[in-house]
Amino acid sequence: MPSTSLSFADRAAHRAWLTSQAGLPRGFRAGAAAFEFVPFEVEKPARMKLALLTLDAPTGAFAAVFTRNAFPGAPVLVGRRRLAEPRLGAVLVNNKISNVCAPGGVEASERLCAEAAGLLGLAPSEVLPSSTGVIGWRLPLEAMSEALPAAVASLQGSSILPAAEGIMTTDLYPKVRRADLPGGASIVGIAKGAGMVEPNLATMLVYLLTDAPVGRAELRAALAEAVDQSFNAISIDSDTSTSDTVVALASGAAGPVDREAFRAGLLRVCRDLAEDVVRNGEGVRHVMRVRVRGAPDATAARQLGKAIVNSPLLKTAVAGNDPNVGRLVAALGKEAGARGIALDPSRAQLTLGGEVILEGGLFQLDREKERRLTAHLVAAELYPQAPAPDGITFRPPIDFPRHERAVEIEVALNGGPGQAEVLGADLTHEYVTENADYRS
Amino acid sequence: MPSTSLSFADRAAHRAWLTSQAGLPRGFRAGAAAFEFVPFEVEKPARMKLALLTLDAPTGAFAAVFTRNAFPGAPVLVGRRRLAEPRLGAVLVNNKISNVCAPGGVEASERLCAEAAGLLGLAPSEVLPSSTGVIGWRLPLEAMSEALPAAVASLQGSSILPAAEGIMTTDLYPKVRRADLPGGASIVGIAKGAGMVEPNLATMLVYLLTDAPVGRAELRAALAEAVDQSFNAISIDSDTSTSDTVVALASGAAGPVDREAFRAGLLRVCRDLAEDVVRNGEGVRHVMRVRVRGAPDATAARQLGKAIVNSPLLKTAVAGNDPNVGRLVAALGKEAGARGIALDPSRAQLTLGGEVILEGGLFQLDREKERRLTAHLVAAELYPQAPAPDGITFRPPIDFPRHERAVEIEVALNGGPGQAEVLGADLTHEYVTENADYRS
Repeated sequence: MPSTSLSFADRAAHRAWLTSQAGLPRGFRAGAAAFEFVPFEVEKPARMKLALLTLDAPTGAFAAVFTRNAFPGAPVLVGRRRLAEPRLGAVLVNNKISNVCAPGGVEASERLCAEAAGLLGLAPSEVLPSSTGVIGWRLPLEAMSEALPAAVASLQGSSILPAAEGIMTTDLYPKVRRADLPGGASIVGIAKGAGMVEPNLATMLVYLLTDAPVGRAELRAALAEAVDQSFNAISIDSDTSTSDTVVALASGAAGPVDREAFRAGLLRVCRDLAEDVVRNGEGVRHVMRVRVRGAPDATAARQLGKAIVNSPLLKTAVAGNDPNVGRLVAALGKEAGARGIALDPSRAQLTLGGEVILEGGLFQLDREKERRLTAHLVAAELYPQAPAPDGITFRPPIDFPRHERAVEIEVALNGGPGQAEVLGADLTHEYVTENADYRS
Repeated sequence: MPSTSLSFADRAAHRAWLTSQAGLPRGFRAGAAAFEFVPFEVEKPARMKLALLTLDAPTGAFAAVFTRNAFPGAPVLVGRRRLAEPRLGAVLVNNKISNVCAPGGVEASERLCAEAAGLLGLAPSEVLPSSTGVIGWRLPLEAMSEALPAAVASLQGSSILPAAEGIMTTDLYPKVRRADLPGGASIVGIAKGAGMVEPNLATMLVYLLTDAPVGRAELRAALAEAVDQSFNAISIDSDTSTSDTVVALASGAAGPVDREAFRAGLLRVCRDLAEDVVRNGEGVRHVMRVRVRGAPDATAARQLGKAIVNSPLLKTAVAGNDPNVGRLVAALGKEAGARGIALDPSRAQLTLGGEVILEGGLFQLDREKERRLTAHLVAAELYPQAPAPDGITFRPPIDFPRHERAVEIEVALNGGPGQAEVLGADLTHEYVTENADYRS
């Protein structure tokens, strides 16, 4: 899936690479501002960031895909309305609080859009809002209003990196990916991921900017296709957030582009960002990549792949560098049995790290192979597990991705034309630490 | 769900209660034997137990329900055949290795049944085999054969407790439940649970013995109904094992019973065992009980309940005694959205520990309520989290259940007649420790 095979020796090297990717397409500006506030719901002060992405001229060529969660956040409700508007000129994003089912949530979102619009010389309906963070809390409207001018003042036309940092919550590092298209246009995307990432988007916010002159309908079709093949094929913990949003904006400031090259570029940026989101998932020490083929159809293939990457028992085994392939088979068999997906064990072939582990309905294991499987898991580890200093609080020792390797799982079922590729992650002490104590 | 509200001050008190429950119904004997062996697949010696349950006279009144996993273990394949046999006289269970997709697995199971039958004076087809443990390894046939006479020699007619201990893997304590029926008959059940427990059974082995004079057809109908309302409504980690088995045997040695009383008793024993299995799930510090009503139908209600207890983000929050109710709403909304279950947020009411947390589409939270919600979580904790001595290896400090309290979640959707009750558990450092390093 990844279009790159990068490795970084340290944070500085990763930072230099991010900077090299972050140049804004023509016609866009980006910025962010941070501030402190005290939430209504708890007494401890919290820190919030407001990020802004703006167009030099509002555009009709915009597209967005939102969560299918039945309790969508207020910004998602507002964002869905925006899809019918003639033009969009800015995106306003806050982290820390997701504004879901909060009293007056939609009004709060709209008020912030109107205030930002006032500062930017736009109509309120030309601003799309996004919020991510704690579900259930109310936005600190006054504090956010006060911080808006600083966010506007931070706008600049050279780099998207400050905005990529502004939308982070528990992300360890910002995520920026780009595609440079023949003819001079580019697509630059940023993502905020971390936890609560599963099918049909995640507590995942993604913004894709391009100066390619594509129309609204074309952009919307290309985005729907790219999202299905990227963000809908990943899962960190099977949870789908109430705030998932992917937005694409086209300024049209560059010269003409080939339609196929544009679609391919958009898909590549989305896939790269999707993998970045998994690799920087909360507590992730191993990325798992599952390729399923020979399933009855593509839907079944994706379901089986997701079942494998979502199996807590397999995820914990991978965390421990334990090639407990029985759990892989159990997860596959559970999903097939539960969904009534035809699966003939005697025709299936499973591999892990290129080693055949099951064939003809029988495990193919020996002590030497177990050692090679363990070595594959160790090589895919982003960092080795270290004891928590206080015995409870596990923190990743790095804030950059060391490499783009993954635990490679292949499932060949020889039962039809369906195939899929799914990305997931292990389940670690770092994940539990992060999520047992995220709010406080 | 629990028919009891027990609490135990220490292991000895729990042990005394277990002993009081463990009297065998008339016509049964039970026993177990332990031994060491070296697995083919790894070099480290391992310990296995063989447990035996026998009838004084083989019975035609037996029933069994097996996993729906598409990779069933060899004993499940053999067990399904046994359902067509005229009589059953014994059940032979081993822990440590589950005999799934192992070369010669079915032959190994049958050979052990034949050897046990020889020692017990039964036909080979009158012995039902069960195996639980590591998936992918082969049974140590010679070592098991050698241990069989000791298992037969251990048989006695007074207590099922040795067998309940014999089938344990990572269980912290044996699970025994009983129902004494009017007229003198009884139903006594044992369960082995721990991890890999989800819908449609688990790495869960359950054996139910009764001296009630019920026929084969009646027993099979009653068991199917009881399993659906108990073991199919629990989930520790959403994984369904390749070996799940529930067996019921009736000796007919007691006087006549009322049919309804028998069905109710069987259901109660199954529900109590199901809750025991969750409470003693791997690394479980909180049991979660979700009651859903007002769903379009019972299936939807159970799906929504399972989605809540299976949300890793909610499970980790509960582990941390953090009433992060936003994650509860996110999990509910995700499932409804993904499955197309009609759900009107404005008609939903959600409570946690009896406190209304969402109503009319809006969260109902304040600082005082947050404190009460936290207190509810703390009260439901089986033991407080303690730092791992080595910073990595978390172990439960108790091997008995302190109480039968649960985190109580109620979801009222006002959208139909469907209701369900689902049990699940939190996701803790103890779970990760247990499962990242179970085999070695």
